[in-house]
Amino acid sequence: MLDFIGRLTARQRDPRLLLGPGDDCALIRAAPGRAIVLTTDEMAEGTHFLLPRSTPEQIGRKLARINLSDMAGMGNAVPVAALCGAGLPESTPWQWVRKFTEALMSELNSFNVSLAGGNLTRSDKIHVYLTVTGEAKPSETARRGGARPGDIIFGIGAFGEARAGLEILLSGKPAEPRFKKLLDSFWLPPIQLEAGAVIGKRRLAAALMDNSDGLYKSVKTIAAASGCGALIEVNEDALSPALAAYCAARKKNWRDYVVSGGEDYGLVLAVNPRKARDFIETFPRACCFGVMTAGRDILFHENCKPRNFEHF
Amino acid sequence: MLDFIGRLTARQRDPRLLLGPGDDCALIRAAPGRAIVLTTDEMAEGTHFLLPRSTPEQIGRKLARINLSDMAGMGNAVPVAALCGAGLPESTPWQWVRKFTEALMSELNSFNVSLAGGNLTRSDKIHVYLTVTGEAKPSETARRGGARPGDIIFGIGAFGEARAGLEILLSGKPAEPRFKKLLDSFWLPPIQLEAGAVIGKRRLAAALMDNSDGLYKSVKTIAAASGCGALIEVNEDALSPALAAYCAARKKNWRDYVVSGGEDYGLVLAVNPRKARDFIETFPRACCFGVMTAGRDILFHENCKPRNFEHF
Repeated sequence: MLDFIGRLTARQRDPRLLLGPGDDCALIRAAPGRAIVLTTDEMAEGTHFLLPRSTPEQIGRKLARINLSDMAGMGNAVPVAALCGAGLPESTPWQWVRKFTEALMSELNSFNVSLAGGNLTRSDKIHVYLTVTGEAKPSETARRGGARPGDIIFGIGAFGEARAGLEILLSGKPAEPRFKKLLDSFWLPPIQLEAGAVIGKRRLAAALMDNSDGLYKSVKTIAAASGCGALIEVNEDALSPALAAYCAARKKNWRDYVVSGGEDYGLVLAVNPRKARDFIETFPRACCFGVMTAGRDILFHENCKPRNFEHF
Repeated sequence: MLDFIGRLTARQRDPRLLLGPGDDCALIRAAPGRAIVLTTDEMAEGTHFLLPRSTPEQIGRKLARINLSDMAGMGNAVPVAALCGAGLPESTPWQWVRKFTEALMSELNSFNVSLAGGNLTRSDKIHVYLTVTGEAKPSETARRGGARPGDIIFGIGAFGEARAGLEILLSGKPAEPRFKKLLDSFWLPPIQLEAGAVIGKRRLAAALMDNSDGLYKSVKTIAAASGCGALIEVNEDALSPALAAYCAARKKNWRDYVVSGGEDYGLVLAVNPRKARDFIETFPRACCFGVMTAGRDILFHENCKPRNFEHF
């Protein structure tokens, strides 16, 4: 199996990859004047996907994307290479591993990232993890702790769609064609590397992170790291047509999905009011989600206070 | 829990760690003129340890060491920072996580490596993984594929002890005091970073790797990567007093342990005969394990052909 992965990854021709899979370590060329950016994320059977309902291609592609999303959440960070680890039951079909690895590698390659190596071990259920290394000028990175009271909260990407997609998947019924977009948002979330790069280069964000656990948790994380509070407000700009159709059909409050739905993987950021105009002109489709406040509380505008908030 | 890990890791004062745990990514200062060295390894419940027989401290320390061993296997590679991922059942006691993290971090710190971040997820059984990033001059790294027929095979470290230690653990009986060293070899294998650094700096190895799966598999891997064969020979130099006592007491053939016992984590290397004298003077306790040959076969001197070889 490792031989196969070696042959597969040997197709990659990346001059930055000095030594790829097959040795004790990978060797990657460091860019002069850049810091090393490092992140890892994992998907586990039963927690992030169910078998056999999820295909190895879906898992491989999503694993690549959720890790690259962390790079986007750092500002202008350029991902370069990745190591993949997998824990697999002995019964895992060979074809599963091949399809997973091909999908993972092809997805990484489409973002100009090489698969540089990894590790394979036995386990009772499948879990797969990825570590991505990249490069950045520290001055062009944006962290979570830089927000100040009065900064405006913005979001880039779709909000709430991935959770609606997950509900459709868990229902076990085939998705209606008009809801297919929601499944895509769950399995193939758009990754905001280009937006992150612009935000980092032009220092548009006082605080920035990727939106992996939903708007509320992202704002709460930025607020806690920055020593601020926040007032969250959700207006119709944040409602996508697909989510609107889904919530109308299921008689759901769409703001609950926007505020508390996880796995959307866009960006959430705090922007100093003096930079807000520049930011809005650069990202005209970004949504405003309220404002950072003095104090430590996370408050909601009354139109978006989730009704069953404690349940999330 | 992540708050706790944040507080714990904040104690580390490492000027190379520009941004530690708590953000989307870690930021690590890159050393000018060095390549990035990257490796990952995992330990899974049921495969690498059994609960509750194994302590979180044992698992944390070993996880650090097996990853650092891969760095040693690259020659003069200096490990700098690590990301840890863990998949934990909901029932995992908080104290387990604390003890594991403290042991992992303290072990990494003792090798001058910082814990820079990680990821936590739910899973049915415990698995923990580590990714270590380090730096190296590519010209001072040693790979697996450089051996030539006539090169002498050497080993550094203990051979066969970890497998004897594992047998004692699996027996479920308390270890006799004279066999305690064997348990240590399993849980706390000596890591040959300094030897690797000297070998790399002085270019003593034509091929080098860490000995994670036993001498036979290491030689086979070097031979396959180098397009050679090998003749393996094991003489009494390779027999440690602890392994000798164990094999005498259990009426076992000690050469089976040396040749096929895994998890020893020393180094196996091929040395050009012209450098052999220099190598032996530098590493007087290294063992000679035979010679690389033309052809592709891995042959054994008759004194060490394992009797039940196919079973391993």
